[in-house]
Amino acid sequence: MLTGKNYIGNQLSANGNKTYTTFNPQINTKNTNVFTEATSAEINVAAQLATEAFKTYKLVSGAKKAVFLKAIAEEIENLGDALIEVYMSESGLPQGRAMGERGRTVGQLRAFAAHIENGSWVDATIDTAQPERQPMAKVDLRKMNVPLGPIVVFGASNFPLAFSTAGGDSAAALASGCPVIVKSHPMHAGTGELVASAIIKAVEKTGMPNGVFSNLNSSGIEVGQELVKHPLVKGVGFTGSIRGGRALFDLAAQREEPIPVFAEMGSINPVVILPEALKEKATDWAKTYAGSITLGSGQFCTNPGLLLAIKSDGLTEFTQTLAEEIVKVEPSCMLHPNIVGAYNSNKSKVISQDGIEVLADFSGDSKSNYGRQVVSKVDGTTFLANPTLHQEVFGPFSLVVECENVKQLEQILTQLEGQLTGTIIGTENELSVNCGIVSALQNRVGRIIFNGVPTGVEVCPSMQHGGPYPASTDSRFTAVGVDSIKRWVRPFSFQSWPNNLLPNELKDENPLQILRNVNGIKTTDKI
Amino acid sequence: MLTGKNYIGNQLSANGNKTYTTFNPQINTKNTNVFTEATSAEINVAAQLATEAFKTYKLVSGAKKAVFLKAIAEEIENLGDALIEVYMSESGLPQGRAMGERGRTVGQLRAFAAHIENGSWVDATIDTAQPERQPMAKVDLRKMNVPLGPIVVFGASNFPLAFSTAGGDSAAALASGCPVIVKSHPMHAGTGELVASAIIKAVEKTGMPNGVFSNLNSSGIEVGQELVKHPLVKGVGFTGSIRGGRALFDLAAQREEPIPVFAEMGSINPVVILPEALKEKATDWAKTYAGSITLGSGQFCTNPGLLLAIKSDGLTEFTQTLAEEIVKVEPSCMLHPNIVGAYNSNKSKVISQDGIEVLADFSGDSKSNYGRQVVSKVDGTTFLANPTLHQEVFGPFSLVVECENVKQLEQILTQLEGQLTGTIIGTENELSVNCGIVSALQNRVGRIIFNGVPTGVEVCPSMQHGGPYPASTDSRFTAVGVDSIKRWVRPFSFQSWPNNLLPNELKDENPLQILRNVNGIKTTDKI
Repeated sequence: MLTGKNYIGNQLSANGNKTYTTFNPQINTKNTNVFTEATSAEINVAAQLATEAFKTYKLVSGAKKAVFLKAIAEEIENLGDALIEVYMSESGLPQGRAMGERGRTVGQLRAFAAHIENGSWVDATIDTAQPERQPMAKVDLRKMNVPLGPIVVFGASNFPLAFSTAGGDSAAALASGCPVIVKSHPMHAGTGELVASAIIKAVEKTGMPNGVFSNLNSSGIEVGQELVKHPLVKGVGFTGSIRGGRALFDLAAQREEPIPVFAEMGSINPVVILPEALKEKATDWAKTYAGSITLGSGQFCTNPGLLLAIKSDGLTEFTQTLAEEIVKVEPSCMLHPNIVGAYNSNKSKVISQDGIEVLADFSGDSKSNYGRQVVSKVDGTTFLANPTLHQEVFGPFSLVVECENVKQLEQILTQLEGQLTGTIIGTENELSVNCGIVSALQNRVGRIIFNGVPTGVEVCPSMQHGGPYPASTDSRFTAVGVDSIKRWVRPFSFQSWPNNLLPNELKDENPLQILRNVNGIKTTDKI
Repeated sequence: MLTGKNYIGNQLSANGNKTYTTFNPQINTKNTNVFTEATSAEINVAAQLATEAFKTYKLVSGAKKAVFLKAIAEEIENLGDALIEVYMSESGLPQGRAMGERGRTVGQLRAFAAHIENGSWVDATIDTAQPERQPMAKVDLRKMNVPLGPIVVFGASNFPLAFSTAGGDSAAALASGCPVIVKSHPMHAGTGELVASAIIKAVEKTGMPNGVFSNLNSSGIEVGQELVKHPLVKGVGFTGSIRGGRALFDLAAQREEPIPVFAEMGSINPVVILPEALKEKATDWAKTYAGSITLGSGQFCTNPGLLLAIKSDGLTEFTQTLAEEIVKVEPSCMLHPNIVGAYNSNKSKVISQDGIEVLADFSGDSKSNYGRQVVSKVDGTTFLANPTLHQEVFGPFSLVVECENVKQLEQILTQLEGQLTGTIIGTENELSVNCGIVSALQNRVGRIIFNGVPTGVEVCPSMQHGGPYPASTDSRFTAVGVDSIKRWVRPFSFQSWPNNLLPNELKDENPLQILRNVNGIKTTDKI
């Protein structure tokens, strides 16, 4: 079923001679399928096809694009168990997670289909002419969002489905009217090819232009670099490490024509635990966080890697319980030996720093490539002085910081790097009086949570998944939810354009019956 | 009345020893007021005050910020003739333009006040909890736009009021809840100081925090560079040359924490004149464009610098009339001897290229620092082969490109750099059949105009002023109109936050009665 080839538009192609295989971390063995990396010539053809496809795809109606996205979802479902099996063999993740992530992926595609079906999302804004206005006549101006052009999407190691081939970035770009070229993640090239085959089927069934989608295999960084530098590429979506995301951001910024890169990168997702909460529910919260820290072997971008609290008996109780509870969790398989290797070395680097106390270190039996959870502790002064302790340890790891007082806690928050999420555990009264902490945390994060865990990223319009650098490269956008479409569009104004030649979204008659801003009033009325 | 000092927050300060004066191009003489450039220490204090002010200013209600913006407008008007006189003495621009630009500036401030007064602009989006949802409970999530933090605004040489101290960038940033540090333009430091004094009066009268606004003098590039690199600065607004904007963009991208730079830069604003229009109205359009090319001595960012048409008798008639008409226009004063110098040298560079024919070159008498208009012509093949001809000549200059056929015209459009505007002159029938031209032009511009001139940028919600690089550094935003506020905000989600501690925009009761997206429905209802 797997060919190991690239999809250059609708065509399978494997002209290169660089090949690679994926790896099954559960059985610590290479998989057998051989994938052929895309060549520069293939990359170039994909970019040219995408540019050609853009000419017609940008004009396809929202309703027709919705049919296309729903067809992709259906074709992914039609892959059936074959997809789940390949996914598991390439990620080490369990069947439940595979099925859940598939559900999330097709759910995202259908959510985007619903979002674009009628057309309100283009933010149609109309100011009609006032030819008699003094001292100068006012022209007719009509504005709406239009797609940027071909977008390159990088598959994410930790979401082989939901943030890869047909994941959130691709779904948003295709929904907006942008062709997509996926740089497939080398760790799950087979999952990528299967999903790509589903997309290509949907392209053909719904009559979308050849080149609206390509899927390129890559074993290293070269294919991605070439794509980001390609003059025909107009935007980049990435989920992964700070090093990887920053390298792409830098490449894109250095182009003759810089292009937007939305990279969702590192985050240690600080959790502030206030004293009353520790008095009342230290044990409960410790149990909850033992679960959150180890969820999915700590491989979620919103994994809580930093727990901040003020020195107290409650904190002692919390850390003791957390230590006891977390070692009870059975370790689970991580995505790849390289990920396990990085986890172990980053973890060792942190716990070897001066002033670090290891509270819990799973010492039971576990298989190769399984992530063994660790919780450690440090005082606030040491934490402030040592930036190594601020860095993400991707995996089931968390660091408890014992602060002297509220002032020190606030100082730590102020000096933290940007984060996807920040959490506050406390009573409502504590939340209302600790304005300094809330304000400082808000400045550093994209989403703030009260009495909960940061893991679990709901796909809905009010989700913000992104944050100040290095959580993402541009905090003004989200990677999750329908608003993530805004990354791939730009406003465009038509001045004095004949009504019958305007896009339907902007015509006087409002044929799509969408909500528009007309002369400053939000309305679905015609003009 | 002018002190020559910086405003570091509400305090006048001049600790440096680097001084400079402005220049009156009308009388070709230095002005007498001496300005003191800001020191690194002053820059640092301004950034720290802005960061401190942000803590409270970000929480100020839309209604109160609106009062502040309206107070700025009023204080600018209260400056009376003194402002107009200083403006004219520093820009060489006539009184009518000075007054018009003042009107535009206070109009923008009031438009932003109206925009933020109720709060709908924050795009409040709410998804309420579903504790019973299977297989997993859904949490309560509420999202709105929040300000980025201190923004640096660079004064623009060609708009001493409307795109400088209290211009569009500053008004948008202050409206959003961001403190502003202005890097005053050296050519109009006095105009800048007067407007800054008006803003500071408004700060004090309306009780805004000290540091919400600073105005820094600079004679060169160092102050601006230091500001863009300052870790406490979170965004940059700029209007000016490609070289200047790109240098700031590069600095910001190279920071440890990259920050968004919205730079509105060069544009030659291509105008496509189709054959039927030339048959019917060649003379009329030639007269209209003689006016548009010379308006404000060609110093508008939307000046039409490139006229594209297919070889025909109509085009010959058009170019002849354009040449005759344009030399009838009296030259006017340019902003500064440096601007005149650059204009003359860029103009000479273009007309000395192979294959360029000069159609009109104003040879009458004119004063020092006046821009002498030139129109020249080249064939399409030569234009395609020589990128020097694609570059902006800032001033009253335009280049007619005589294309072989529609295909060549489309090829030229496809290869053009990004532009603020593109214009098509033709009959409705021509517009409807030349889809290739419309599509190619749309890909390269932010605003497309039918049968008009690109000069004249209406301040209204449906205006897009920005475009693919190098028209601006990020085509996803506009520099003009209330939507320009989006440059300085980021979406922010509250999860499971107590209702009484939420911002008013997100509370169940909807106390501001704003339009919100609640569980996917746009409504002003309470929850």
